[in-house]
Amino acid sequence: MEIVAVVALLALLEYIVFAALVGRARGLYQVAAPAVTGHPVFERYFRVQQNTLELLVVFLPSLWLFGHYLSPTWAALLGAVFLLGRVLYLRGYVADPKRREIGFGLSVLPILVLLLGGLWGALRAAL
Amino acid sequence: MEIVAVVALLALLEYIVFAALVGRARGLYQVAAPAVTGHPVFERYFRVQQNTLELLVVFLPSLWLFGHYLSPTWAALLGAVFLLGRVLYLRGYVADPKRREIGFGLSVLPILVLLLGGLWGALRAAL
Amino acid sequence: MEIVAVVALLALLEYIVFAALVGRARGLYQVAAPAVTGHPVFERYFRVQQNTLELLVVFLPSLWLFGHYLSPTWAALLGAVFLLGRVLYLRGYVADPKRREIGFGLSVLPILVLLLGGLWGALRAAL
Repeated sequence: MEIVAVVALLALLEYIVFAALVGRARGLYQVAAPAVTGHPVFERYFRVQQNTLELLVVFLPSLWLFGHYLSPTWAALLGAVFLLGRVLYLRGYVADPKRREIGFGLSVLPILVLLLGGLWGALRAAL
Repeated sequence: MEIVAVVALLALLEYIVFAALVGRARGLYQVAAPAVTGHPVFERYFRVQQNTLELLVVFLPSLWLFGHYLSPTWAALLGAVFLLGRVLYLRGYVADPKRREIGFGLSVLPILVLLLGGLWGALRAAL
Repeated sequence: MEIVAVVALLALLEYIVFAALVGRARGLYQVAAPAVTGHPVFERYFRVQQNTLELLVVFLPSLWLFGHYLSPTWAALLGAVFLLGRVLYLRGYVADPKRREIGFGLSVLPILVLLLGGLWGALRAAL
């Protein structure tokens, strides 16, 4: 499971970079806390971070349980697709909110496989 | 702990359904990204998803540690109450924000029992 | 790892207190759901809770994996710094958003140590 732990921690590192980009955008576009609106480009960075947060809550437990019940190697490979999908999501969304679709798909698809695979593995072990 | 894993993954599946309902509401009520306000019914679906995210971060570790230190069966039963509470919360909130109270209580109560029970179990094992 | 579990659950308890303070501020400053803006002091409490949510998603897995691969005792000590940092962050932010910096640093620094330490430990175990 070490390789699964490495992928999980890399996903958290990627998320911290996204959060730092929001902090930088707050300064660049002069959006003073506690506001989270006020400049469209700031809002894009903010939504990328929020969306990544929303997905990490599903990604991390699903990654872990898929790795535990089915295969650590496949869990890590699917996790690597998620890491890449998030980079494409960030780049697409900041360029134009309509261009976030491919990165979104490449983030959500591996999560669905990890979640449903983990559920199948846990059910098989429980019954 | 397989039954605890199943309940955890079902909670994540339920959350994904809530997130998909936000996406659908975005289209129906024409709230273009990155905005998250603009139509009251969209905002209700969005707040249901956000509130579920806020609770899942407490629910999942508490469920796991309660199951580990006290009882997997009771953890799974309390988790099932949470799953039901979230459905009632969604239905109440979308109908009228003031009618979200029962579903909220049925989501938060099992979390508090899981959290405090897990804390007691971990303290007992530590001392 | 019992001591790590205790710190993790105390962090969740602290977060629930922050969430309850948002609920109280909603009543005090008359911000009716689903709105999350409308009064600056309400918004500060809300942002404290949201920021804590954003950090917990990184804190909890990093705490756990640092404890697993390196040292449960050091994980628990770094976690205690995070717990304290969050209290300072709350007090500073509510008084004046510009005074949230010290508490923010004391929350983020232990997380970075836990994350990078955990990553190093997992890589060392994997190779």
